[in-house]
Amino acid sequence: MNRYDSLTIDGLQYANWSEKIFREMNEGGVDAVHVTIAYHENFRETVLNMEQWNRWFEQFPDLICLARTATDITEAKAAGKTAIIFGFQNPSPIEDDIGLVEILYSLGARFMQLSYNNQSLLATGCYEQNDPGITRMGKQVIQEMNRVGMVVDMSHSAERSTLEAIDISARPIAITHANPQFWHKALRNKSDTVLKALAESGGMLGFSMYPHHLAGAGDCTLASFCEMIARTADLMGIDQIGFGSDLCQDQPDSVVEWMRVGRWTKEIDYGEGSADNAGFPPQPSWFVDNRDFGQLRVGLSEAGFSKGDVDKVMGGNWFRFFSDSFAPR
Amino acid sequence: MNRYDSLTIDGLQYANWSEKIFREMNEGGVDAVHVTIAYHENFRETVLNMEQWNRWFEQFPDLICLARTATDITEAKAAGKTAIIFGFQNPSPIEDDIGLVEILYSLGARFMQLSYNNQSLLATGCYEQNDPGITRMGKQVIQEMNRVGMVVDMSHSAERSTLEAIDISARPIAITHANPQFWHKALRNKSDTVLKALAESGGMLGFSMYPHHLAGAGDCTLASFCEMIARTADLMGIDQIGFGSDLCQDQPDSVVEWMRVGRWTKEIDYGEGSADNAGFPPQPSWFVDNRDFGQLRVGLSEAGFSKGDVDKVMGGNWFRFFSDSFAPR
Repeated sequence: MNRYDSLTIDGLQYANWSEKIFREMNEGGVDAVHVTIAYHENFRETVLNMEQWNRWFEQFPDLICLARTATDITEAKAAGKTAIIFGFQNPSPIEDDIGLVEILYSLGARFMQLSYNNQSLLATGCYEQNDPGITRMGKQVIQEMNRVGMVVDMSHSAERSTLEAIDISARPIAITHANPQFWHKALRNKSDTVLKALAESGGMLGFSMYPHHLAGAGDCTLASFCEMIARTADLMGIDQIGFGSDLCQDQPDSVVEWMRVGRWTKEIDYGEGSADNAGFPPQPSWFVDNRDFGQLRVGLSEAGFSKGDVDKVMGGNWFRFFSDSFAPR
Repeated sequence: MNRYDSLTIDGLQYANWSEKIFREMNEGGVDAVHVTIAYHENFRETVLNMEQWNRWFEQFPDLICLARTATDITEAKAAGKTAIIFGFQNPSPIEDDIGLVEILYSLGARFMQLSYNNQSLLATGCYEQNDPGITRMGKQVIQEMNRVGMVVDMSHSAERSTLEAIDISARPIAITHANPQFWHKALRNKSDTVLKALAESGGMLGFSMYPHHLAGAGDCTLASFCEMIARTADLMGIDQIGFGSDLCQDQPDSVVEWMRVGRWTKEIDYGEGSADNAGFPPQPSWFVDNRDFGQLRVGLSEAGFSKGDVDKVMGGNWFRFFSDSFAPR
C-alpha cells in the first residue's frame, strides 16, 4: 500500500480487469478510476457488463467499490479501496431512447461519450470526414445528461461537435483521455481552440498515456510528457487538467480490433494504428500499470510543478469536477 | 390533504396511473404504495415501465417520489408526497439471468413474485395442477434477493412453493395481496397453514380489496372484511398484517386480459373471473379509490381494534417490514 494523503484519480482505463489489476490499483494508491464499460454495446449488453462488475464488487469488497458520488471516493480512500466510476465511450447503451440516460445513471454510469470515432445518433466522431455538429437528439440528450448528473465526454468526437457540446451543455464537460495536438498531431488529440473552450467552460482534460497519443509513442519520455503538461497548464490553467491514462492493460489484440470495428464494418479499420502496427502498442516504460502513478508525481515535480499543483493534477481537479458533476441538478 | 400522524401504506396497486390518481393518493393521505410495474414484461420492457415512472416523478415532484428505503417513506410523508415502491408480479423481468436481480434492485425494485398463476423458472403458480416446489434457479434467486434486499412475494404462487419459499428464504417474505381461504375460498386466497408459517417466519400478509378475493365480491361489507381481519390477527398476530388493496383503478378490461393471458396462451383464460364476468369486477362501495383508506380506519375501530392496532394494520407493520427488508444484508 502506497497511499498518498492527496487523491490519485485516473480519468479513464479499459483494462482486462482481474484481481491482479485490482491489487495493482491498490498498491499504486489509486483512489478512483473511471472505467469504460461499453464501446459498442447496446443497452442489454451494457447491463451484462455491469452485472460482471457487480460480481467483482462482491468478490473483492476489500479492493474495489462502485462510486456514485464524489463522497464515495473519499470513503473508498479511507477504507483503502479503489472507487470505480462507470462510463461509456459511445452512446450505444442508450440506443435511441433518451429514457435510458436516467436508467443508466441509476445503475451507476457517470460519463458518456457522445460519439466514438464515427457518427452517432448524437454527435460526430473524430475519424469522420464531415462534422455537422450536435444532432437534434444530441441536444436533447445533453440536456438530460445535465439534469441527471452524467458527464458529457468528447474524447473521441470531432472538433465542431466538441465545440458545440461545450457550448450547449449547461454543465462543464470532459475530454477524459486525449492530449494536445500542439505536442503530438493525431486525430484523437485536441486543438488549442478546443482546449481553450473546454477550460473556459470549466471542463476537464485527462492526459492520455496511450502510446498513439504520445509524441514518440512508447519511446516518449516522462520528461517530454510532463513538459507537455506544463505547457497545457499554461494554456488551460492548472485547475482544468488531470490524467486519463487510457490504460488497456492485459487486453488481447482482439479487443483493440473490437474497439475499432465493433459491428459497424466488415472491413478492418486500424484506427490510430496501421497494418504493420495493428495491435495494442507497447506502453512507455514509466507507465505500464497502476503501480506507476508515483512516477508521474515525480515527473511533475521535476517539471517544476509545486506540491499543491501536483496534487491538483494527480486527482484533486478530477475530485472537484466529480463533486460538481455527479449530482442531479 | 388528510394526512394521519401514523402511516398509511398500501402493499399493492396496479392502477392506470395518472395525475388524478396521484392526487387521490395525496388526498387519501396515502404515504406509500407498492406499485406493480411488471406482469409478463421481460427485462427491457420492465425498464421501459421504469422510464415511464421516471417521467411521472419528474412531472409530479410535489405528489410522488421513488422509495428505495423505508426512510424515503417518512421523508415523503414529511414532504406531503406519496412514496412509490416498485415491484413485479412475475419474475419475467429477470429472464434467465440472476445478475438482473441486483440490476433491478439498483433501479428501485423491492418486491418480486416468484410466480404469477403459472409455473415460472423459479416457482409454481396458484393455478397449476401440480406444484413441485421451488426450482433450482428459484433457490439461487431467493438467496440473491435476500442478499440485495428484494422481498420475495408469493401472492400468486401455489401452496407448496409458498411454504418452501418461506422456509428457504433467510429473510421474512410477503404475500402482498391476498385474503385467508377460511373467509373466502378462492385459489388465490391462502390456507391457514400458509398464513401460520408466514407469520411464524416474520412475514407479512396484505389484505386484498380486489372483489374476487372478497366474500360476497363487490357486495362484501366493510364489517365482514374487518371481522375477517380480526380473525386473521388472531391467527397470525397483530404485527404481521397490513393492506395490499390490489386496486386496479381506471384500467380497461384489456388489462385484466393481459394480466391473465400475457403471451403464454392463444386461448382466453378467465383467471379468477368467468366467461360471463370476464372484465374487472366492480369494487366494494367502501373502497373505490385511494381516498377511501380513512374508511378502513373507521371499519377497523368499529371491529374492535385499538388505536395502536389500527395504526399497525394501516401502515405501521409494513413500515417495520420495509425497514428490515430493503437494505442489503
